[in-house]
Amino acid sequence: MGNTSNDVGSNVTAVTVAELAGLNTLGISLARIDFAPGGINPPHTHPRATEVLTVIEGSLLVGFVTSNPDNRLFTKMLEKGDVFMFPQGLIHFQKNVGYGHALAIAGLSSQNPGVITIANAVFGSNPDIAEDILAKAFQVDIKVVRQIQSKF
Amino acid sequence: MGNTSNDVGSNVTAVTVAELAGLNTLGISLARIDFAPGGINPPHTHPRATEVLTVIEGSLLVGFVTSNPDNRLFTKMLEKGDVFMFPQGLIHFQKNVGYGHALAIAGLSSQNPGVITIANAVFGSNPDIAEDILAKAFQVDIKVVRQIQSKF
Amino acid sequence: MGNTSNDVGSNVTAVTVAELAGLNTLGISLARIDFAPGGINPPHTHPRATEVLTVIEGSLLVGFVTSNPDNRLFTKMLEKGDVFMFPQGLIHFQKNVGYGHALAIAGLSSQNPGVITIANAVFGSNPDIAEDILAKAFQVDIKVVRQIQSKF
Amino acid sequence: MGNTSNDVGSNVTAVTVAELAGLNTLGISLARIDFAPGGINPPHTHPRATEVLTVIEGSLLVGFVTSNPDNRLFTKMLEKGDVFMFPQGLIHFQKNVGYGHALAIAGLSSQNPGVITIANAVFGSNPDIAEDILAKAFQVDIKVVRQIQSKF
Amino acid sequence: MGNTSNDVGSNVTAVTVAELAGLNTLGISLARIDFAPGGINPPHTHPRATEVLTVIEGSLLVGFVTSNPDNRLFTKMLEKGDVFMFPQGLIHFQKNVGYGHALAIAGLSSQNPGVITIANAVFGSNPDIAEDILAKAFQVDIKVVRQIQSKF
Amino acid sequence: MGNTSNDVGSNVTAVTVAELAGLNTLGISLARIDFAPGGINPPHTHPRATEVLTVIEGSLLVGFVTSNPDNRLFTKMLEKGDVFMFPQGLIHFQKNVGYGHALAIAGLSSQNPGVITIANAVFGSNPDIAEDILAKAFQVDIKVVRQIQSKF
Repeated sequence: MGNTSNDVGSNVTAVTVAELAGLNTLGISLARIDFAPGGINPPHTHPRATEVLTVIEGSLLVGFVTSNPDNRLFTKMLEKGDVFMFPQGLIHFQKNVGYGHALAIAGLSSQNPGVITIANAVFGSNPDIAEDILAKAFQVDIKVVRQIQSKF
Repeated sequence: MGNTSNDVGSNVTAVTVAELAGLNTLGISLARIDFAPGGINPPHTHPRATEVLTVIEGSLLVGFVTSNPDNRLFTKMLEKGDVFMFPQGLIHFQKNVGYGHALAIAGLSSQNPGVITIANAVFGSNPDIAEDILAKAFQVDIKVVRQIQSKF
Repeated sequence: MGNTSNDVGSNVTAVTVAELAGLNTLGISLARIDFAPGGINPPHTHPRATEVLTVIEGSLLVGFVTSNPDNRLFTKMLEKGDVFMFPQGLIHFQKNVGYGHALAIAGLSSQNPGVITIANAVFGSNPDIAEDILAKAFQVDIKVVRQIQSKF
Repeated sequence: MGNTSNDVGSNVTAVTVAELAGLNTLGISLARIDFAPGGINPPHTHPRATEVLTVIEGSLLVGFVTSNPDNRLFTKMLEKGDVFMFPQGLIHFQKNVGYGHALAIAGLSSQNPGVITIANAVFGSNPDIAEDILAKAFQVDIKVVRQIQSKF
Repeated sequence: MGNTSNDVGSNVTAVTVAELAGLNTLGISLARIDFAPGGINPPHTHPRATEVLTVIEGSLLVGFVTSNPDNRLFTKMLEKGDVFMFPQGLIHFQKNVGYGHALAIAGLSSQNPGVITIANAVFGSNPDIAEDILAKAFQVDIKVVRQIQSKF
Repeated sequence: MGNTSNDVGSNVTAVTVAELAGLNTLGISLARIDFAPGGINPPHTHPRATEVLTVIEGSLLVGFVTSNPDNRLFTKMLEKGDVFMFPQGLIHFQKNVGYGHALAIAGLSSQNPGVITIANAVFGSNPDIAEDILAKAFQVDIKVVRQIQSKF
């Protein structure tokens, strides 16, 4: 079982071609996602895969945002046995909205789907993206950029 | 020529299958990017395409961030005639670091590449992503989330 | 919940592009499989997809056979939360080996995976495949072929 | 010329990427099929290729079965110079219905098409698929399953 | 049978998605090629397919040329039952070098392979390619260009 | 800058997977094309890529010819900043029609697009294509074939 004692209260255990070489060329991989109560799998994308998620235990609020120009948010409450899909490359997230632990299994349409956690890639890259670029992009003061960067 | 009188000081004119139906199945599209002095093309991704960018006028600082777990930032200064590539689905940006207007042409490896501007998708979706999810994801106070959301 | 009161004691509920048009081009589909005690999902193939199966309730014996010339059988016992994969086009099956009802969710790497149940396609086609061809193929008397055909 | 002195009276000589490394990534392979009088190429599938077959000598009865739920059988009599196609992953067969030897050449839309001979994979795997599973799948007595298994 | 009473002494009868809509997405098509004695199928390319050719009657000299910088010519004499492959997009040709009629069947790895007959596309386009461009490209006098253009 | 002191007055500098291994699987490559005044990039094809071309300096006449049976020629005059596309595998060319040097950058939808210069492949292969085949294909006297072959 995944250890969810961290800032976001979730843990992802992936089985991709990096963990299992036999997946090469098969076009599919898996992930197990454990959630503490209130835990989230923060906004992220898979640059090379569509994801299908099935809830095994608990209740999840899930959502994704479409691309420009609409940026429309689609959300849904999922219970045990429910399924949901996140189209390739779109930003999506899950949150455990039940009282107990939650567990989901995801299938991804690539043996090498990749994961980009938005906050980590934008505010926690190595080295940092220049402050003035992020300040203009997010329309905030440079002090706010520095504050967020200090957390990642 | 694109109108760059906006918050980020840049303008993207795209030619994809939405603008030119004849591109269907050809696996390529184009974008012209105009930059005012100091203008940026803010962090964004193309969910379905790798991008190759060529500078026609001016000087650009360009960069992209790799996926988890490294989140490594690669940047380069480009002058007229230089080229650079942004792998499919990765977060990338450009900034005009010269004194005048800058112009670049990008080729994308899909007739329907899509664009996700990170700030708009995360903080400006319709409807908004719940504040508590963004606060936990970016490790900031809910007030900061509301402040950024108010700009998009 | 699927109705498993049939000859094989299982029921498959699929969500493919035929049921959900929005899946088109996304390269993934889903199936829910319910098993009565002792029920089987008989040997079948998906001509256009690799399958990843996750057990939500119960205990399943699963297996697949490789192609010529080896025809090697791989089997595994799966419990709740376990996952397994069936490579594209290979013959595979599942059996509920627990005392109660079992439930599994499968992801398939195509929006239109197709299903060929071997016994139905070989012995229950419309019209029938000629008896002498099946007798020679399965190295049995024509009476045995007729007997099996009468069941499908 | 292929040696057709065997149980089914046919012989397949394939040229795939396993025999000719230069075929890699070219997306096509070949097979020569020799038939003794009355010989059959028993029901089989290619998990990764559509097949196009051309008769060079003799007369062939060919057929394939569509997937669930229809399991419809399409058959045709082919003479020298005739062509026919078997869609990817569907069960198909050929039978020499002329008085002499027959010869066909097949093109397959993959350099690595794979072949699954249904009888061998289902009743002749190594090790055997459990008898009770096959008995339920084919709706026959376990004695019949054992009898067929003994031939493969 | 194809009518070969023409300048090149050959006739191609194609079965692609344009002739048979059911081929769509199957990734394969067919062509029957008839040759008068001495007839040729002149240098051409298929922009979207690799071709596999099988000789049904007669003797063919076949060849293809690799791309830049080698432009290496590979040729082979084929008799009845022989097969040969032409990689996607490469210029290739066949010539009937026997005393009688010849017949070949080709499989192509696309339902929409396309055909570009080099002489027709270069010297017989509608409208013509400018003479000075062709004169410089083929290193000949403009009079020679006009002479060839007059034939197509 | 490319050296354009040659028979056609142009020079192509390519960046494909052969020059830059990191391009592998990214599905895109680049070429810089320099033109002397009056220089041409002679009729050629890319067997595995669609091309998008952008003019950085000068004025270019560009064109491509569709496949059989139409062989229709599409041409356009391009100035600095203009873009044009050449569909995969079709014969195309460019000519510098300005008074000075011209420069273009092309993006290609494959990391390994290949280049077939028609004149070189048809009249300059190693070894030569038989004269009688070319004479019949281009409907010219064998002396004309020999004359062209002597230039390549």
